[in-house]
Amino acid sequence: MTERTDGDRTGPTGWTLHPDRVFPAEATTREFARTIYAETRELPLVSMHGHVDAGVLAADAPFGNPAEVFVVPDHYLVRMLIAQGVAPDALGLPRLDGAATSAPDPREVWRTLCSHWHVFRGTPTRYWLEHALVTELGVSAPPSAQTADLLYDEISGRLATDAYRPLALVERFRLELLATTDAATATLDDHAALAAKGWGGRIVPTFRPDDLLRVDHQGWPADLDLLGERSGIAVDSYRRFVEALEQRRAAFVAAGARATDHGHRSADTTPMSEAEAGRVFDAALRRQATQAEATAFAAHMLFEMARMSTQDGLTMQLHPGVLRSHSSRVAATYGPDIGYDIPVAAEFTRALRPLLDAFGHHPRLRLVVFTVDETTYSRELAPLAGVYPALLLGAPWWFLDSPDGMRRFREAVTDTAGFANTSGFVDDTRAFFSIPARHDLSRRVDAGFLARLVAEHRLGLDEAVETAADLAYHLPRRAYPPL
Amino acid sequence: MTERTDGDRTGPTGWTLHPDRVFPAEATTREFARTIYAETRELPLVSMHGHVDAGVLAADAPFGNPAEVFVVPDHYLVRMLIAQGVAPDALGLPRLDGAATSAPDPREVWRTLCSHWHVFRGTPTRYWLEHALVTELGVSAPPSAQTADLLYDEISGRLATDAYRPLALVERFRLELLATTDAATATLDDHAALAAKGWGGRIVPTFRPDDLLRVDHQGWPADLDLLGERSGIAVDSYRRFVEALEQRRAAFVAAGARATDHGHRSADTTPMSEAEAGRVFDAALRRQATQAEATAFAAHMLFEMARMSTQDGLTMQLHPGVLRSHSSRVAATYGPDIGYDIPVAAEFTRALRPLLDAFGHHPRLRLVVFTVDETTYSRELAPLAGVYPALLLGAPWWFLDSPDGMRRFREAVTDTAGFANTSGFVDDTRAFFSIPARHDLSRRVDAGFLARLVAEHRLGLDEAVETAADLAYHLPRRAYPPL
Amino acid sequence: MTERTDGDRTGPTGWTLHPDRVFPAEATTREFARTIYAETRELPLVSMHGHVDAGVLAADAPFGNPAEVFVVPDHYLVRMLIAQGVAPDALGLPRLDGAATSAPDPREVWRTLCSHWHVFRGTPTRYWLEHALVTELGVSAPPSAQTADLLYDEISGRLATDAYRPLALVERFRLELLATTDAATATLDDHAALAAKGWGGRIVPTFRPDDLLRVDHQGWPADLDLLGERSGIAVDSYRRFVEALEQRRAAFVAAGARATDHGHRSADTTPMSEAEAGRVFDAALRRQATQAEATAFAAHMLFEMARMSTQDGLTMQLHPGVLRSHSSRVAATYGPDIGYDIPVAAEFTRALRPLLDAFGHHPRLRLVVFTVDETTYSRELAPLAGVYPALLLGAPWWFLDSPDGMRRFREAVTDTAGFANTSGFVDDTRAFFSIPARHDLSRRVDAGFLARLVAEHRLGLDEAVETAADLAYHLPRRAYPPL
Repeated sequence: MTERTDGDRTGPTGWTLHPDRVFPAEATTREFARTIYAETRELPLVSMHGHVDAGVLAADAPFGNPAEVFVVPDHYLVRMLIAQGVAPDALGLPRLDGAATSAPDPREVWRTLCSHWHVFRGTPTRYWLEHALVTELGVSAPPSAQTADLLYDEISGRLATDAYRPLALVERFRLELLATTDAATATLDDHAALAAKGWGGRIVPTFRPDDLLRVDHQGWPADLDLLGERSGIAVDSYRRFVEALEQRRAAFVAAGARATDHGHRSADTTPMSEAEAGRVFDAALRRQATQAEATAFAAHMLFEMARMSTQDGLTMQLHPGVLRSHSSRVAATYGPDIGYDIPVAAEFTRALRPLLDAFGHHPRLRLVVFTVDETTYSRELAPLAGVYPALLLGAPWWFLDSPDGMRRFREAVTDTAGFANTSGFVDDTRAFFSIPARHDLSRRVDAGFLARLVAEHRLGLDEAVETAADLAYHLPRRAYPPL
Repeated sequence: MTERTDGDRTGPTGWTLHPDRVFPAEATTREFARTIYAETRELPLVSMHGHVDAGVLAADAPFGNPAEVFVVPDHYLVRMLIAQGVAPDALGLPRLDGAATSAPDPREVWRTLCSHWHVFRGTPTRYWLEHALVTELGVSAPPSAQTADLLYDEISGRLATDAYRPLALVERFRLELLATTDAATATLDDHAALAAKGWGGRIVPTFRPDDLLRVDHQGWPADLDLLGERSGIAVDSYRRFVEALEQRRAAFVAAGARATDHGHRSADTTPMSEAEAGRVFDAALRRQATQAEATAFAAHMLFEMARMSTQDGLTMQLHPGVLRSHSSRVAATYGPDIGYDIPVAAEFTRALRPLLDAFGHHPRLRLVVFTVDETTYSRELAPLAGVYPALLLGAPWWFLDSPDGMRRFREAVTDTAGFANTSGFVDDTRAFFSIPARHDLSRRVDAGFLARLVAEHRLGLDEAVETAADLAYHLPRRAYPPL
Repeated sequence: MTERTDGDRTGPTGWTLHPDRVFPAEATTREFARTIYAETRELPLVSMHGHVDAGVLAADAPFGNPAEVFVVPDHYLVRMLIAQGVAPDALGLPRLDGAATSAPDPREVWRTLCSHWHVFRGTPTRYWLEHALVTELGVSAPPSAQTADLLYDEISGRLATDAYRPLALVERFRLELLATTDAATATLDDHAALAAKGWGGRIVPTFRPDDLLRVDHQGWPADLDLLGERSGIAVDSYRRFVEALEQRRAAFVAAGARATDHGHRSADTTPMSEAEAGRVFDAALRRQATQAEATAFAAHMLFEMARMSTQDGLTMQLHPGVLRSHSSRVAATYGPDIGYDIPVAAEFTRALRPLLDAFGHHPRLRLVVFTVDETTYSRELAPLAGVYPALLLGAPWWFLDSPDGMRRFREAVTDTAGFANTSGFVDDTRAFFSIPARHDLSRRVDAGFLARLVAEHRLGLDEAVETAADLAYHLPRRAYPPL
């Protein structure tokens, strides 16, 4: 059985993608989806929640080989290959101790990916990589054991050209706005360099203070020293800690930042009194804060971050509910962020109550909340976003950033929150080449969802087109306004 | 881009609704849906869980202006407008302290709604209001900033006529049975007046004792006094408390009631011993019951309510899992029920166990359970309703009373509970004009769901038609039988 | 209204089933579904999680009457009839005390089922039974009050013939591999008898030690004695307990077993130190272990079972999250397993962490996890199965083993776990005749899901066909390999 019905994939003259991919099959609905997508596909990209390294952009050096670009930094790919029994070493994942496992030939790593291509059937990873390979890199065949070397050479050839340097890709991808994610203690030198080259305001930093807010974190004292150094404030008390954070936020604002980013385990935002916060902070300085105190302090600091946002206007992004580095053995060998972060049940109704009660109607606050627990969509997040003006429901995040995940999101939240109380599409990626693919996929899925509403006579086509443009472009612009 | 594909909406001669709205787009399925819906659309309405004020019906005075009828009492509408930054004062929401914010001109309130009409895209609120405006009021154009005044005048004109008085609307809406919701301490005078006019048995009260069962509630002593007054029983002990409640239930039964209604935070039904209940009650009389005691007492009283239902036959309705008045600031200014009630995770398997173990096979008990936590559909409620004869799974409630919410409900519960262990459609509305819209939407969604089963050869069309009539009419009649 | 659109059901010449049943209605998608299903429908059945009694197979005596075969042992059927008010006694459910309720005439029991046939609309029970009645038994009309006696006689006639004896049915059903479930203390005599007749390796036992691992279980001391007897090891200490379990596992392996089966309340796998485990075991021997100790010991033993699986290679099956015998009154009268087992919320991310951290990358471990809590699909199980090589996501289980349940499963997990990290289809049934129906339904639903991916240009048709065969056959073979 070898017939391929999406004949575009293996034509004799190369590999193309089907123009209708991801659209609903039903004919009337598909026709509406085409019409809607045609109006959004060329809109510029707003990428306000990214993890591309600012240093890579500032250096603007050519990207390396296909393995280094597409495999090693993409934890979606890495995790799936590990699940199929591929050893992390065989993928070239660096060990923390720098131990001498002979680093694999990148061509071998690429072959490993290609020979496992079938295990990505039905996953967004496949969609994203196909999009990048065909649309951005123009390779001539789908990955397989047979085509691995051909593709490796084709991609390597492209990456060596100036048209594929990082900043050229920012243009090629139509990235109107690209945010990086930066520790609160970052020097922001790369952003200064980019600004000096005229990229300020287009490539912007994002303030991420997580490590500073986890006072039980092993590296906290060192981070605190660094905070003192960067801010020029001797951080010897809770009061000075808050001042130093405010100083750093101001520095980020000056560097063009539009948002903060918070990855806490829980969404709890219960504030402490200043005295209590000071007491815990002092205990933490002595490394004597209990686990419970550290957790409560993190919740308190989320509340504080919201308060600061009402003053400096930075959009606050919260994405809780993930147990990081699930395998302690793997983490001890390879460190974090290689695919072992696993969601847990999330709770928002009670957790966000203190913050929303205090600031939920504040005209300057915009709090964008993401989740990997779908049960909170219809039960908690849509009801909350559907009444508090400060709250925006973020796009489907991480494991949910997929065709069916995005469809379920719209189906679960639109009834209660409509479209206007969502953030529109926000990608979250370390894989630079996947940015346009993710936006394209989102636009196709939203076109399909809106097309269904039109086909079911629940929305006019003109309204659907307007809404699609909102979701793809205007809502994200509004959620992350210039300061 | 201004083409409207559901051309019925902006024709030159007025505004009509598409006859196929909400039906699945796929042609075979749609044709079945039309056939099924044709058999249910004219069935009378059974509205057994309503919040229309009995006084309004008894007085039968003309309704007021469009703002007063459609905006102020509809927390779905209010919450969405607040989320978009409209101030409650601008919507005419009364402040608790009666403070002199100059009450807005109702025409201005209506204009605010109309100019925000686009934010309701994709919501059931839009569906309901369109249905009311077109089908019941015959207005000539969809709401918008441009049409606001025209609509205001058209609606005002209709409302001033006798054909739009409350009791005329009961006829117009084909309401065969309409239940109001009444405090356990209500005089039931309005119902007596309605009965005297010949509406007894058609408009009936529902017994809602929530405030009396929350012994930590600030107004509890006053409510208790009122209970004593209404029942003629001096409520100075737990034993007399139970007697007084039984007396009131009997009075409700005499006034035509068919059901009780319980909105507890949790579904817990763990009973106490009589001695323990007496001890907590006595402590509560002295205002010394702890939070934990009050919570346990509420659970105990749910068990007691089930026991009483096995005796007097009132159908017991339970809809737990909502944190009321999420914003304490808003509640302090405007009071409850304006859109700040937010769901929390619910649990039924353990919570209902004491009640079901004791009464779940009792031939006189019918317990209808509603939830706003969809996760309990397939995990807990369908498995429970699919084995306990006394338990009926209520219709999708509140935020889930929407096209996609109702579809997900059927998909999640039918496998395990079938249709016959559900209550059929039960609306829950304060917005009188939305009653027919809600029933119509439910009938359309169920027609679509059943049509899919037919199209997939999982059900005969004759069976689907019979089932649709059950869901729309016969099952609710059976769930709330005459006593 | 009596037209039947699936005309195959009431033709004048008998009763047939529609060849397209359960396929999506949309024409393109349905055509793909037909093509895909055509390639899997004739594949042999691998049934590795069954509850058919090994004694029935060893005896190979003719099955009894229709009531005894189709009603009494099928808790899906029983629970639905009870929910509709039928008394367990009327269904012939035996009372624990053997009390003299006059056992009902099996023909009456069958009539009760047939006259309630309409309440099974939309349920998988209906699908399974229709499949068995038409495809396996060739009856001439759907069940109804009118046809009950005709069907009873037709079925009774078939069951009396040699072609319908248990082992003949194993052939007829194309069962390539059939696992029974057997207590850890089972003699395995029936399996020895089957092996002697040449069925060894085709009908295999499964090691289920649940009762031995619940040290607070009333019958635990007796079970422990039996363990000592079977293993020949005097189980007077924790160390000897572990040895005896290892001995029994070895006996199961020798008898052809490929898997263990674990039905704990929680998925917790936190290990104890050997000393602590010994202390709890000793307390349990004295009947003095606390509830908390018993729960912790069960978690510890799951960890131990995984450790043993890394040594003997038995696939480990875990299906937690069910509160058994919800009605204590019913359980006291009729015992367990008659439909009163109700799911509760499940948690896997934290619960499986100890086991996965220790053994999740072990090359010999295969842990297949099932759930009846759908919320864990996208949130926990797919992310875990998508990274740990030892973990396989089991098929939709129990209440979720239904057309819509299986579709939701694929939609929720494929994005993150793909297909290759799932177990493929695993049925779980006490109802022997439903085995082919369940596999057929699963193949149809997966064909429909894959057809949608093809129709949406997310997968090639050749890939879909290959994947369908994996799900139906190759993945289960791989998940339960020969030892």
